[in-house]
Amino acid sequence: MLEKTTRMNDLYDFYQSLLTPKQRSYMSLYYLDDLSLGEIAEQYGVSRQAVYDNIKRTEQTLEDYEKKLGLLEKFQARTRIFRSMRNLLAHDANPELLRLVDALEKLE
Amino acid sequence: MLEKTTRMNDLYDFYQSLLTPKQRSYMSLYYLDDLSLGEIAEQYGVSRQAVYDNIKRTEQTLEDYEKKLGLLEKFQARTRIFRSMRNLLAHDANPELLRLVDALEKLE
Repeated sequence: MLEKTTRMNDLYDFYQSLLTPKQRSYMSLYYLDDLSLGEIAEQYGVSRQAVYDNIKRTEQTLEDYEKKLGLLEKFQARTRIFRSMRNLLAHDANPELLRLVDALEKLE
Repeated sequence: MLEKTTRMNDLYDFYQSLLTPKQRSYMSLYYLDDLSLGEIAEQYGVSRQAVYDNIKRTEQTLEDYEKKLGLLEKFQARTRIFRSMRNLLAHDANPELLRLVDALEKLE
């Protein structure tokens, strides 16, 4: 479950701008604020099942976006490369190169 | 017009996976293969106006995706940084670092 939560938080980071306001609300209450389905249902005056269905569909939507755009996978690949660059630069410090690695990471 | 074509080709590169098959067909015939609206209309047995409307809407869709995700802008920013890295590494050749820059560019 923790693994799923981490993945959903990660996907949400990348694709939240493509979701509707309601999808964003439910997802962030459930995955970021850790509210229960019942608590979200109560807050919105809808059934627990309605919240559950909406969140399940949104999870699938996020996975579909990742399948199409692969932003999370590319981010993770770049992060590994940045780490390798920093390791190399630790031995052979080049301040200008380090500044460029910083600039790249800031774009993430 | 050339500038617009370049931008649409660039946006299409990043977001084509989010378009419908018909949107992809029209956009690639018009912007990549340089067919006229009339030629596309004839090929699909629809009016020139229908093709025009579809393409205009798709252009707006691509701009909306760019506004939300900024993939083209980030790509361009990274490309500039890669160029700076290569310039620095040209003077202070470090084959391992160059290999990592290659790996980063391959992810684009």
